[in-house]
Parts: sequence; structure tokens; C-alpha cells
Amino acid sequence: MSDFTPTTRTKLKRNYKRGAYDRETVYAILDAVPHCHVGYVIDGQPYVTPTLQWREGDRVYWHGSSASRMLRTVETGVPVCLTVSTLDGYVLARSAFHHSVNYRSVMIFGTAHALTGADEKEAALKVMMEQLFPGRWDALRPVTAQELKATTVVGMEIEEAAAKIRTGPPVDDEEDYGWDVWAGVLPTALTKGAPIDDPRLEDGVPVPENVTGFRRAE
Amino acid sequence: MSDFTPTTRTKLKRNYKRGAYDRETVYAILDAVPHCHVGYVIDGQPYVTPTLQWREGDRVYWHGSSASRMLRTVETGVPVCLTVSTLDGYVLARSAFHHSVNYRSVMIFGTAHALTGADEKEAALKVMMEQLFPGRWDALRPVTAQELKATTVVGMEIEEAAAKIRTGPPVDDEEDYGWDVWAGVLPTALTKGAPIDDPRLEDGVPVPENVTGFRRAE
Repeated sequence: MSDFTPTTRTKLKRNYKRGAYDRETVYAILDAVPHCHVGYVIDGQPYVTPTLQWREGDRVYWHGSSASRMLRTVETGVPVCLTVSTLDGYVLARSAFHHSVNYRSVMIFGTAHALTGADEKEAALKVMMEQLFPGRWDALRPVTAQELKATTVVGMEIEEAAAKIRTGPPVDDEEDYGWDVWAGVLPTALTKGAPIDDPRLEDGVPVPENVTGFRRAE
Repeated sequence: MSDFTPTTRTKLKRNYKRGAYDRETVYAILDAVPHCHVGYVIDGQPYVTPTLQWREGDRVYWHGSSASRMLRTVETGVPVCLTVSTLDGYVLARSAFHHSVNYRSVMIFGTAHALTGADEKEAALKVMMEQLFPGRWDALRPVTAQELKATTVVGMEIEEAAAKIRTGPPVDDEEDYGWDVWAGVLPTALTKGAPIDDPRLEDGVPVPENVTGFRRAE
């Protein structure tokens, strides 16, 4: 896959070896991590709202209530920064200065627009559900026109994107390696727990494989 | 503890039962989750940068390289939105519309300023380290003047803050509870793995209790 072109917004000025602009790296992080933070501006004030994103091709999507301030703002076509980041571990060095974290992050810039047609919205929501829990959509009580009306779905062409990744052990100053302190990595990861039945679940409804086999937290 | 006053920036317009403005709730989330996203604006363009925050009293801090674009921007006293959010689980309902996520989030507004004195910076960095790994600071190779110079630490008085929390099972439309599909919660959590020794760790240096007992990911 081709690269996104680094710009003044996305070109890394420091630790440039941690940066990547290729679609494969950017997409792998977006696809592994639905949890994202959307930045937008109202009257000069930045806002950062957590939500879930999903991707199709060069486009990311997110959604929510039509009454959401975030969605009412971004659907007007203002500049948006959408950031995904994981915390993959604490990196403990021999000096405070070389402590770090392992992570994968993507920062995307673009302009969002609201999906307008009911069919278009429903299709996008189905893609989200099917990416998270394949096969679940058709098992659900069908969506109503009123629900689609109450839901805003926005899509954003990825105009610019940069990934940043750190992995591996601490990198200490050469003269510090003999310092008598533990050094290494304390890994962290988003993991899934055992599914919890709704207390009102009817008897005998099993947990489906698309839940037990969920891949976005393991 | 007293409450933060809801304002036009922080007052929830929807799902207001999920909102909280009391310091106890806001602080509990900030203290449990160092991973945060800092939003700021350059020439009308929002940026969202992931980093680690820590708190003392009514003030949050974060830090990084003095060359960081994010830090060079926010230390000039521009408006900042700092958001912390966890993904505590996927909430699977009988209809697509009532699907949700469980989460804890805090959105903070304020104006950051850079700490200027070397002593002040070192003291703040020690607080960060000691909150994460109690006792580690004094075991490290001491910080140098050059390292402090290369590090920017910013502090931000919490002018306004709002927490938002969702917990518990899905809430379906009453007529949908009989629908034949599994419903419930798939919990997710940031968990810690087994510490990984630095390949260059000297023989016989044990993993300290402040690493094995780390509380920010469990």
C-alpha cells in the first residue's frame, strides 16, 4: 500500500525513527484499536472527546447521538484531529530521563461530514458492528427509521496520517548499564474478561463465538 | 471534597445521569489512568497528543522533550483540553441502537504553564515517578542539569472538569427483551503482563515490588 505524505502537521521532528506514514502501519493500528479521541475546536477552545472509530478504505467513521455536541460540531466540516493510541508498556530505565512507554499511535487529520441518507447510515453502522462482532447485525432486532434519525454517523477522508510506535527495552546511557537497579519493561495491554450475561437474558441463550472470540482486546 | 462548577464547556446535555462534577470522582479517574490525550490548537487546527498525566491537588502535569511541538505550544498559555478515558467493556444489547460501551472519562479545561526552575521540574518528575513506582526515584542514577534542561514539564490548574461514567448491563427497549440474541457485557481492562528484564540487566537484579505490585493496570 502507498504512503501518506508527511506534512507540517504530521512530519515528526523528534524520534523520527518511531514514525511511519505507510498505510499498512496506519491501518493496522486503526483496525486494532477502535477506542479513539476526537479533537475539534469551538470558538478557539479545543475539545477532546473519546469515542469508537472504524475504518473502510481511506475513510474513518464514528457515530453517536444526533444531539451530541461533538457530532453537531464536526459534521459542519471543521478541521478534526482523530488520535488512536495504546499503552503497550512502561519502560523502566536506569535514569529517570530514559524512562518511556511503549505504545502505538496514529494521528489523523481531515474534515468530517455527516452521512445523510438512512440507507447510507445503516450500511455504515452495520460495517462497524460486523467488524467488532461478525454476524451479530442480522441477529439483532432490526433498526428503525426513528433510531437512524436519532443517530449521527460521520465519515472522514484521511487527508494526512502519521503513526508512531515504540517497542522494546529501555535505551540507557552506556555508562549507566551497570547501575544497580532493575530495568526492563512492564507490559500492559487491553484485555477482555469473561462475558457477563445481561441479568435479564432469557435462559439458554449461549454466548456467541463472535463475543468469546473478540479480537480487539486480547 | 467540593464540586467543580458545571459550565457551558463541561455541562452534559445528554445522558446527564452519567455525569459527575465532584472532585472525588474526577480525581479517582485521573489517578487510576495516567494515559491521557491533550488537545490544543495551532492556527485553528486541533491536535490531539497522547501522553501520561499525573495529579497533585487541583493541578495536573505532563512532560516530555523540550523540542516537542505539543509542549512548545501548550507552554505558551493556550487553552487546553486534557481527556482521560478508559474502555471498560462493550455493552451488547438486543438492538444495534442500544449498544454502548462502559467507560470512565474525565475532560479537563485549563491553561498550562511550563515549570521553570530546575528544582521545581525535578520535584514534579519525582512525584510522577513515585506515584507510578514508589521508591524507584532514589534508586535511579541521579538526574543531571542537562537532562532537566532537555525536559519540559507543564502544570495546569483544573479550571473546569467533568467526569462521565457508564457501567452495567445494556438497557433495551422493554419490548425487545425477549429477542433471541445474546446480550450482556464483554468487559475490557488494561492489564499488566509479566515484567520483562532488560536484555542487558546485570545478573541477580530482582524485579522490585513496585513493579510487580503496579496498580495502574490490573
